Amino acid sequence: MGIDPGLTRCGLSVVQAGRGREVLPVAVGVVRTPTGEELPDRLLRLSNAVNEWMDDYRPDVVAVERVFERGNVSTVIHTAHASGVLVLAAAQRGIPVHMYTPSEVKKAVSGNGRADKRQMTSMITRILGLSEPPKPADAADALALAVCHCWRAPLLARTAALLNSGGDPS
Amino acid sequence: MGIDPGLTRCGLSVVQAGRGREVLPVAVGVVRTPTGEELPDRLLRLSNAVNEWMDDYRPDVVAVERVFERGNVSTVIHTAHASGVLVLAAAQRGIPVHMYTPSEVKKAVSGNGRADKRQMTSMITRILGLSEPPKPADAADALALAVCHCWRAPLLARTAALLNSGGDPS
Repeated sequence: MGIDPGLTRCGLSVVQAGRGREVLPVAVGVVRTPTGEELPDRLLRLSNAVNEWMDDYRPDVVAVERVFERGNVSTVIHTAHASGVLVLAAAQRGIPVHMYTPSEVKKAVSGNGRADKRQMTSMITRILGLSEPPKPADAADALALAVCHCWRAPLLARTAALLNSGGDPS
Repeated sequence: MGIDPGLTRCGLSVVQAGRGREVLPVAVGVVRTPTGEELPDRLLRLSNAVNEWMDDYRPDVVAVERVFERGNVSTVIHTAHASGVLVLAAAQRGIPVHMYTPSEVKKAVSGNGRADKRQMTSMITRILGLSEPPKPADAADALALAVCHCWRAPLLARTAALLNSGGDPS
Protein backbone atom coordinates (compact mmCIF):
# COMPACT_ATOMS: atom_id res chain seq x y z
CA MET A 1 0.00 0.00 0.00
CA GLY A 2 1.31 3.45 -0.92
CA ILE A 3 0.22 6.58 0.96
CA ASP A 4 0.88 10.18 -0.08
CA PRO A 5 -0.15 11.94 3.16
CA GLY A 6 -2.21 15.11 3.14
CA LEU A 7 -5.08 16.63 5.11
CA THR A 8 -6.98 18.21 2.21
CA ARG A 9 -6.11 15.42 -0.28
CA CYS A 10 -4.47 12.12 0.67
CA GLY A 11 -3.47 9.65 -2.06
CA LEU A 12 -3.96 5.93 -1.36
CA SER A 13 -2.94 3.02 -3.56
CA VAL A 14 -2.65 -0.74 -3.45
CA VAL A 15 -0.42 -2.76 -5.76
CA GLN A 16 0.65 -6.39 -6.01
CA ALA A 17 4.35 -7.16 -6.57
CA GLY A 18 4.82 -9.69 -9.40
CA ARG A 19 7.90 -11.44 -10.77
CA GLY A 20 11.07 -9.40 -11.10
CA ARG A 21 10.12 -5.76 -11.60
CA GLU A 22 6.50 -6.51 -12.49
CA VAL A 23 3.98 -4.55 -10.38
CA LEU A 24 0.22 -4.93 -10.81
CA PRO A 25 -2.25 -2.14 -9.91
CA VAL A 26 -5.02 -3.13 -7.48
CA ALA A 27 -6.66 0.12 -6.34
CA VAL A 28 -6.03 3.84 -6.25
CA GLY A 29 -7.97 6.74 -4.79
CA VAL A 30 -7.88 10.06 -3.00
CA VAL A 31 -9.42 10.84 0.39
CA ARG A 32 -10.44 14.48 0.81
CA THR A 33 -11.40 16.27 4.02
CA PRO A 34 -13.25 19.61 4.00
CA THR A 35 -10.96 22.60 4.60
CA GLY A 36 -13.79 24.33 6.50
CA GLU A 37 -13.92 21.61 9.18
CA GLU A 38 -11.99 21.60 12.46
CA LEU A 39 -8.74 19.60 12.70
CA PRO A 40 -10.11 16.84 15.01
CA ASP A 41 -13.00 16.11 12.59
CA ARG A 42 -10.68 16.08 9.58
CA LEU A 43 -8.20 13.71 11.26
CA LEU A 44 -11.06 11.41 12.29
CA ARG A 45 -12.36 11.26 8.67
CA LEU A 46 -8.87 10.50 7.38
CA SER A 47 -8.26 7.83 10.02
CA ASN A 48 -11.61 6.17 9.28
CA ALA A 49 -10.90 6.19 5.53
CA VAL A 50 -7.41 4.68 5.75
CA ASN A 51 -8.68 2.06 8.21
CA GLU A 52 -11.43 1.09 5.73
CA TRP A 53 -8.78 0.67 3.00
CA MET A 54 -6.68 -1.46 5.35
CA ASP A 55 -9.76 -3.58 6.22
CA ASP A 56 -10.58 -4.05 2.53
CA TYR A 57 -7.09 -4.73 1.15
CA ARG A 58 -5.14 -6.06 4.18
CA PRO A 59 -1.75 -4.77 2.97
CA ASP A 60 1.47 -6.64 3.94
CA VAL A 61 3.47 -3.41 4.10
CA VAL A 62 2.83 0.33 3.82
CA ALA A 63 5.06 2.88 2.05
CA VAL A 64 4.49 6.48 3.19
CA GLU A 65 6.04 9.69 1.92
CA ARG A 66 8.26 11.22 4.59
CA VAL A 67 7.10 14.74 5.49
CA PHE A 68 9.70 17.09 4.20
CA GLU A 69 10.96 20.51 5.23
CA ARG A 70 9.98 22.39 2.11
CA GLY A 71 7.42 24.95 1.05
CA ASN A 72 4.82 26.55 3.27
CA VAL A 73 5.41 25.66 6.95
CA SER A 74 1.70 25.69 7.78
CA THR A 75 1.04 23.13 4.98
CA VAL A 76 3.94 21.03 6.29
CA ILE A 77 2.35 21.05 9.78
CA HIS A 78 -1.05 19.96 8.36
CA THR A 79 0.62 17.18 6.35
CA ALA A 80 2.56 16.03 9.42
CA HIS A 81 -0.69 15.89 11.47
CA ALA A 82 -2.23 13.71 8.74
CA SER A 83 0.88 11.54 8.43
CA GLY A 84 0.86 10.83 12.19
CA VAL A 85 -2.68 9.48 11.95
CA LEU A 86 -1.92 7.40 8.83
CA VAL A 87 1.28 5.86 10.23
CA LEU A 88 -0.57 5.11 13.50
CA ALA A 89 -3.24 3.13 11.59
CA ALA A 90 -0.54 0.82 10.20
CA ALA A 91 1.27 0.56 13.56
CA GLN A 92 -1.98 -0.40 15.34
CA ARG A 93 -2.33 -3.35 12.94
CA GLY A 94 1.33 -4.34 13.19
CA ILE A 95 1.87 -3.59 9.48
CA PRO A 96 5.50 -2.58 8.75
CA VAL A 97 5.87 1.04 7.56
CA HIS A 98 8.62 2.24 5.22
CA MET A 99 9.12 5.96 4.70
CA TYR A 100 10.61 7.46 1.54
CA THR A 101 11.49 11.04 0.64
CA PRO A 102 10.06 12.41 -2.64
CA SER A 103 13.49 12.25 -4.30
CA GLU A 104 13.99 8.60 -3.25
CA VAL A 105 10.66 7.77 -4.92
CA LYS A 106 11.54 9.71 -8.07
CA LYS A 107 14.95 8.08 -8.30
CA ALA A 108 13.58 4.55 -7.75
CA VAL A 109 10.74 4.92 -10.27
CA SER A 110 12.28 7.09 -13.01
CA GLY A 111 16.03 6.81 -12.34
CA ASN A 112 16.10 10.59 -11.78
CA GLY A 113 15.68 12.10 -8.30
CA ARG A 114 14.55 15.37 -9.87
CA ALA A 115 11.95 14.00 -12.32
CA ASP A 116 8.96 16.34 -12.73
CA LYS A 117 5.29 15.43 -12.18
CA ARG A 118 4.69 14.78 -15.90
CA GLN A 119 7.65 12.38 -16.20
CA MET A 120 6.60 10.55 -13.01
CA THR A 121 2.97 10.18 -14.14
CA SER A 122 4.10 8.87 -17.52
CA MET A 123 6.49 6.32 -15.90
CA ILE A 124 3.81 5.11 -13.46
CA THR A 125 1.24 4.74 -16.27
CA ARG A 126 3.71 2.62 -18.26
CA ILE A 127 5.04 0.52 -15.33
CA LEU A 128 1.54 -0.42 -14.16
CA GLY A 129 0.15 -0.83 -17.71
CA LEU A 130 -2.68 1.64 -17.01
CA SER A 131 -5.00 2.62 -19.87
CA GLU A 132 -4.82 6.29 -18.85
CA PRO A 133 -2.66 8.42 -16.52
CA PRO A 134 -3.80 8.36 -12.85
CA LYS A 135 -5.34 11.63 -11.58
CA PRO A 136 -5.03 13.73 -9.50
CA ALA A 137 -1.30 14.05 -8.73
CA ASP A 138 -1.83 12.63 -5.20
CA ALA A 139 -3.15 9.36 -6.68
CA ALA A 140 -0.13 9.08 -8.99
CA ASP A 141 2.20 9.84 -6.06
CA ALA A 142 0.60 7.11 -3.96
CA LEU A 143 1.15 4.59 -6.80
CA ALA A 144 4.77 5.77 -7.22
CA LEU A 145 5.40 5.17 -3.49
CA ALA A 146 4.02 1.64 -3.74
CA VAL A 147 6.12 0.87 -6.86
CA CYS A 148 9.20 2.40 -5.19
CA HIS A 149 8.80 0.06 -2.23
CA CYS A 150 8.18 -3.05 -4.40
CA TRP A 151 11.42 -2.38 -6.24
CA ARG A 152 13.47 -1.51 -3.16
CA ALA A 153 12.09 -4.22 -0.87
CA PRO A 154 14.31 -7.07 -2.21
CA LEU A 155 17.42 -4.90 -1.72
CA LEU A 156 16.28 -3.87 1.78
CA ALA A 157 15.67 -7.54 2.65
CA ARG A 158 19.14 -8.58 1.39
CA THR A 159 20.77 -5.72 3.32
CA ALA A 160 18.92 -6.68 6.51
CA ALA A 161 19.89 -10.34 6.09
CA LEU A 162 23.55 -9.41 5.60
CA LEU A 163 23.52 -7.09 8.61
CA ASN A 164 21.92 -9.83 10.74
CA SER A 165 24.54 -12.35 9.63
CA GLY A 166 27.30 -9.87 10.53
CA GLY A 167 28.28 -9.37 6.89
CA ASP A 168 28.98 -6.11 5.08
CA PRO A 169 25.98 -4.96 2.98
CA SER A 170 28.16 -2.87 0.68
CA MET B 1 -7.41 17.60 30.20
CA GLY B 2 -4.39 19.58 28.99
CA ILE B 3 -1.92 18.16 26.45
CA ASP B 4 1.47 19.62 25.53
CA PRO B 5 2.21 17.52 22.44
CA GLY B 6 5.63 16.05 21.79
CA LEU B 7 7.14 12.82 20.49
CA THR B 8 10.10 12.57 22.89
CA ARG B 9 8.22 14.09 25.85
CA CYS B 10 4.47 14.75 25.91
CA GLY B 11 2.93 16.54 28.90
CA LEU B 12 -0.51 15.35 30.11
CA SER B 13 -2.62 16.88 32.85
CA VAL B 14 -6.11 16.63 34.29
CA VAL B 15 -7.75 19.40 36.33
CA GLN B 16 -11.23 20.03 37.72
CA ALA B 17 -12.78 23.49 37.25
CA GLY B 18 -14.21 24.83 40.52
CA ARG B 19 -16.16 27.97 41.37
CA GLY B 20 -15.12 31.19 39.67
CA ARG B 21 -11.43 30.98 38.84
CA GLU B 22 -10.76 28.04 41.14
CA VAL B 23 -9.03 25.10 39.40
CA LEU B 24 -8.13 21.88 41.24
CA PRO B 25 -5.25 19.64 40.14
CA VAL B 26 -6.18 15.97 39.51
CA ALA B 27 -3.21 14.42 37.70
CA VAL B 28 -0.08 15.39 35.81
CA GLY B 29 2.55 13.35 34.01
CA VAL B 30 4.88 13.06 31.06
CA VAL B 31 4.85 10.31 28.42
CA ARG B 32 8.25 9.64 26.85
CA THR B 33 9.00 7.61 23.72
CA PRO B 34 12.54 6.36 22.96
CA THR B 35 14.34 8.50 20.37
CA GLY B 36 16.02 5.35 19.01
CA GLU B 37 12.71 3.75 18.01
CA GLU B 38 11.02 4.05 14.61
CA LEU B 39 8.23 6.63 14.15
CA PRO B 40 5.36 4.06 13.89
CA ASP B 41 6.36 2.44 17.22
CA ARG B 42 6.71 5.81 18.95
CA LEU B 43 3.30 7.03 17.70
CA LEU B 44 1.71 3.75 18.84
CA ARG B 45 3.21 4.14 22.35
CA LEU B 46 1.98 7.73 22.56
CA SER B 47 -1.50 6.82 21.31
CA ASN B 48 -1.78 3.94 23.81
CA ALA B 49 -0.66 6.20 26.67
CA VAL B 50 -3.09 9.03 25.93
CA ASN B 51 -5.92 6.53 25.46
CA GLU B 52 -5.13 5.04 28.90
CA TRP B 53 -5.31 8.52 30.43
CA MET B 54 -8.64 9.13 28.68
CA ASP B 55 -9.95 5.76 29.92
CA ASP B 56 -8.86 6.56 33.49
CA TYR B 57 -9.99 10.20 33.72
CA ARG B 58 -12.78 10.47 31.09
CA PRO B 59 -12.18 14.18 30.38
CA ASP B 60 -15.12 16.40 29.28
CA VAL B 61 -12.87 18.50 27.04
CA VAL B 62 -9.25 18.51 25.87
CA ALA B 63 -6.99 21.57 25.48
CA VAL B 64 -4.00 20.99 23.16
CA GLU B 65 -1.14 23.33 22.29
CA ARG B 66 -1.33 24.32 18.64
CA VAL B 67 1.84 23.32 16.77
CA PHE B 68 3.65 26.49 15.94
CA GLU B 69 5.99 27.56 13.17
CA ARG B 70 9.03 28.26 15.28
CA GLY B 71 12.42 26.75 15.93
CA ASN B 72 13.82 23.63 14.29
CA VAL B 73 11.58 22.45 11.42
CA SER B 74 12.36 18.78 12.00
CA THR B 75 11.26 19.11 15.66
CA VAL B 76 8.09 20.89 14.48
CA ILE B 77 7.35 17.96 12.13
CA HIS B 78 7.83 15.41 14.94
CA THR B 79 5.58 17.44 17.25
CA ALA B 80 2.93 17.70 14.52
CA HIS B 81 3.01 13.89 13.99
CA ALA B 82 2.46 13.45 17.74
CA SER B 83 -0.26 16.11 17.86
CA GLY B 84 -2.19 14.38 15.04
CA VAL B 85 -2.30 11.15 17.05
CA LEU B 86 -3.29 12.94 20.29
CA VAL B 87 -6.08 15.00 18.69
CA LEU B 88 -7.35 11.84 16.94
CA ALA B 89 -7.69 10.05 20.30
CA ALA B 90 -10.05 12.79 21.52
CA ALA B 91 -11.96 12.93 18.21
CA GLN B 92 -12.51 9.13 18.26
CA ARG B 93 -14.21 9.50 21.67
CA GLY B 94 -16.24 12.55 20.62
CA ILE B 95 -14.42 14.73 23.20
CA PRO B 96 -14.32 18.42 22.12
CA VAL B 97 -10.78 19.68 21.41
CA HIS B 98 -9.68 23.30 21.89
CA MET B 99 -6.32 24.42 20.55
CA TYR B 100 -4.31 27.30 22.01
CA THR B 101 -1.05 28.89 20.91
CA PRO B 102 1.72 29.19 23.52
CA SER B 103 1.16 32.97 23.79
CA GLU B 104 -2.60 32.53 24.33
CA VAL B 105 -1.83 30.18 27.22
CA LYS B 106 0.76 32.55 28.70
CA LYS B 107 -1.61 35.52 28.42
CA ALA B 108 -4.55 33.64 29.97
CA VAL B 109 -2.54 32.23 32.88
CA SER B 110 -0.09 35.05 33.70
CA GLY B 111 -1.64 38.07 31.96
CA ASN B 112 1.52 38.35 29.84
CA GLY B 113 1.79 36.63 26.42
CA ARG B 114 5.58 36.70 26.72
CA ALA B 115 5.94 35.27 30.24
CA ASP B 116 9.04 33.07 30.61
CA LYS B 117 9.08 29.44 31.83
CA ARG B 118 9.95 30.43 35.40
CA GLN B 119 7.07 32.91 35.64
CA MET B 120 4.64 30.38 34.16
CA THR B 121 5.72 27.59 36.51
CA SER B 122 5.40 29.90 39.50
CA MET B 123 1.88 31.04 38.43
CA ILE B 124 0.71 27.45 37.86
CA THR B 125 2.10 26.32 41.24
CA ARG B 126 0.19 29.16 42.96
CA ILE B 127 -3.08 28.81 40.98
CA LEU B 128 -3.32 25.06 41.62
CA GLY B 129 -2.06 25.33 45.23
CA LEU B 130 0.72 22.79 44.57
CA SER B 131 3.23 22.08 47.33
CA GLU B 132 6.10 22.23 44.82
CA PRO B 133 6.59 23.40 41.19
CA PRO B 134 5.60 20.77 38.58
CA LYS B 135 8.51 19.26 36.65
CA PRO B 136 9.59 18.84 33.87
CA ALA B 137 8.52 21.88 31.81
CA ASP B 138 6.20 19.72 29.67
CA ALA B 139 4.16 18.80 32.77
CA ALA B 140 3.86 22.47 33.78
CA ASP B 141 2.86 23.37 30.20
CA ALA B 142 0.13 20.70 30.19
CA LEU B 143 -1.27 22.12 33.45
CA ALA B 144 -1.12 25.66 32.04
CA LEU B 145 -3.13 24.55 28.98
CA ALA B 146 -5.80 23.01 31.19
CA VAL B 147 -6.02 26.13 33.40
CA CYS B 148 -6.12 28.34 30.28
CA HIS B 149 -9.11 26.42 28.97
CA CYS B 150 -10.96 26.45 32.33
CA TRP B 151 -10.66 30.22 32.46
CA ARG B 152 -11.54 30.82 28.81
CA ALA B 153 -14.35 28.27 28.54
CA PRO B 154 -17.07 30.49 30.15
CA LEU B 155 -16.20 33.31 27.72
CA LEU B 156 -16.17 30.90 24.75
CA ALA B 157 -19.57 29.56 25.85
CA ARG B 158 -21.06 33.06 26.16
CA THR B 159 -19.67 34.02 22.75
CA ALA B 160 -21.10 30.87 21.14
CA ALA B 161 -24.51 31.50 22.77
CA LEU B 162 -24.57 35.09 21.53
CA LEU B 163 -23.54 34.04 18.02
CA ASN B 164 -26.25 31.38 17.99
CA SER B 165 -28.87 33.90 19.13
CA GLY B 166 -27.77 36.28 16.38
CA GLY B 167 -26.33 38.77 18.88
CA ASP B 168 -23.03 40.60 18.72
CA PRO B 169 -20.40 38.98 21.00
CA SER B 170 -18.37 42.19 21.19
